[in-house]
Amino acid sequence: MELLRLGAVGEERPYVRAADGTVHDLSSITADIDGTFLASDGIARARAALESGDLPAVDVEGLRIGAPIARPTAVVCIGQNYAAHAAESGAEPPKQPIVFFKHPNTVVGPYDEVLVPRGATKTDWEVELAVVIGKEARYVDSDEEALACVAGYAVSNDVSERAFQIEQSGGQWSKGKCCETFNPLGPALVPADEVGDVQNLDLKSWVNGEPRQASNTRDMIFSVAALIRDLSQYMTLSPGDIVNTGTPEGVALSGRFPYLAPGDTMELEIQGLGKQKQSLGKA
Amino acid sequence: MELLRLGAVGEERPYVRAADGTVHDLSSITADIDGTFLASDGIARARAALESGDLPAVDVEGLRIGAPIARPTAVVCIGQNYAAHAAESGAEPPKQPIVFFKHPNTVVGPYDEVLVPRGATKTDWEVELAVVIGKEARYVDSDEEALACVAGYAVSNDVSERAFQIEQSGGQWSKGKCCETFNPLGPALVPADEVGDVQNLDLKSWVNGEPRQASNTRDMIFSVAALIRDLSQYMTLSPGDIVNTGTPEGVALSGRFPYLAPGDTMELEIQGLGKQKQSLGKA
Repeated sequence: MELLRLGAVGEERPYVRAADGTVHDLSSITADIDGTFLASDGIARARAALESGDLPAVDVEGLRIGAPIARPTAVVCIGQNYAAHAAESGAEPPKQPIVFFKHPNTVVGPYDEVLVPRGATKTDWEVELAVVIGKEARYVDSDEEALACVAGYAVSNDVSERAFQIEQSGGQWSKGKCCETFNPLGPALVPADEVGDVQNLDLKSWVNGEPRQASNTRDMIFSVAALIRDLSQYMTLSPGDIVNTGTPEGVALSGRFPYLAPGDTMELEIQGLGKQKQSLGKA
Repeated sequence: MELLRLGAVGEERPYVRAADGTVHDLSSITADIDGTFLASDGIARARAALESGDLPAVDVEGLRIGAPIARPTAVVCIGQNYAAHAAESGAEPPKQPIVFFKHPNTVVGPYDEVLVPRGATKTDWEVELAVVIGKEARYVDSDEEALACVAGYAVSNDVSERAFQIEQSGGQWSKGKCCETFNPLGPALVPADEVGDVQNLDLKSWVNGEPRQASNTRDMIFSVAALIRDLSQYMTLSPGDIVNTGTPEGVALSGRFPYLAPGDTMELEIQGLGKQKQSLGKA
């Protein structure tokens, strides 16, 4: 089962896709897929309703795919969490997770247009595993408790403007991470218990059809469980928060590839979580 | 007129305080004071209702004072925006605004307890002028247009844990800015048109009754208008966002004062915006 939000921007409604590919209207269970839904055992309730045949199958042909969670309360990001990406960025692998934020209004659908900001010269892609928090995480001690706070996972594109992030920021990265449309998310929120081993997922990106990133979540320096444990010592993670867990090597910042320009396309895929595709436009 | 949210944590309701000090129930106009309210000319509607006598005066004795805005969509922070504070932090005055974020769930009421985090050794105070955004700010060109996006102002305490922020962060400050209770806000949201010259407000803080910070918003390196203009080139500010505009000199990081400990009290005041007071407890 996957959770989806379909419909025009700002008018998305909740759906589930069953294992057989049929899509079912979830609006009898919840008005939206958000922190309140996830924190109230929403995924279990959706699954039970789907299994008991209570959710009508619907034709969703032609509906826009929105981000699979509404209005994230925070978008927490982890920097340099793959050793090879830290190296291509000119940095040592971090000894502790590096944390910054994106503005939550950067989150858009997985096929929405991404806008190159005005004045941008170094717009870059970053395929990342997004963790969607389903239960408050506060001073978590164990990996088991950490993973129990995870509702599910999604594909995330942590779009970045490197000149804004590095040259115009005084060293604080958020300035290059928050431009409008800079966080395509989805297509689906896949419940954690349907993902299998989250530390063994291939993740890949392409620009204009040419391969860029190709790695596996086993190469994370800090695992999902370690990240949740660590973050929970420094903040309380709330249901509806997203954690972007860092990107592997193969971004333009490495110098190996050109930065993005209007007219380009990005594709991103994570094993078992689906694929995104965005065209680049101009702000 | 000032906007207030009063009631137990999570059960706050909206009120206005009139110029004569009487408090009036605003719930006939809005269920809460949030971005949706502010973006729909809420302040003008509240003022009109108050002036026409449509809002009942109420006795609010004993009610807790909450943060004056519900669920901020983002808490954007500006670093080192007063030259003397940059100097006491060991830094040159920045050439461009430095931007980082606090998790929105750090926002608490102005008299709520602030919790020293587990493992903390360097918990610090920061009195700041908070700007509350009332209208979307995107690629704003002029100071006039920038100030038109501001709904009002409030006192903010950008509580910081310096070891988390500087020593355990890999250089990204948010890690020391996001612990629970780390952003007391209020007591009131004062509409922008009732503040007078926002670049000429005294701001002060005390610890255990002893003076710490004493400065004026005229000493900001980047004015409120300049900050909104600059931020709007890098992100879209949404109604309901808060911008903490930086703190003046006189924090513990300077080495002139001890860091905070459980049992201490902080007081913060900004001219025309009111006063906060928090006791320090333990997480």
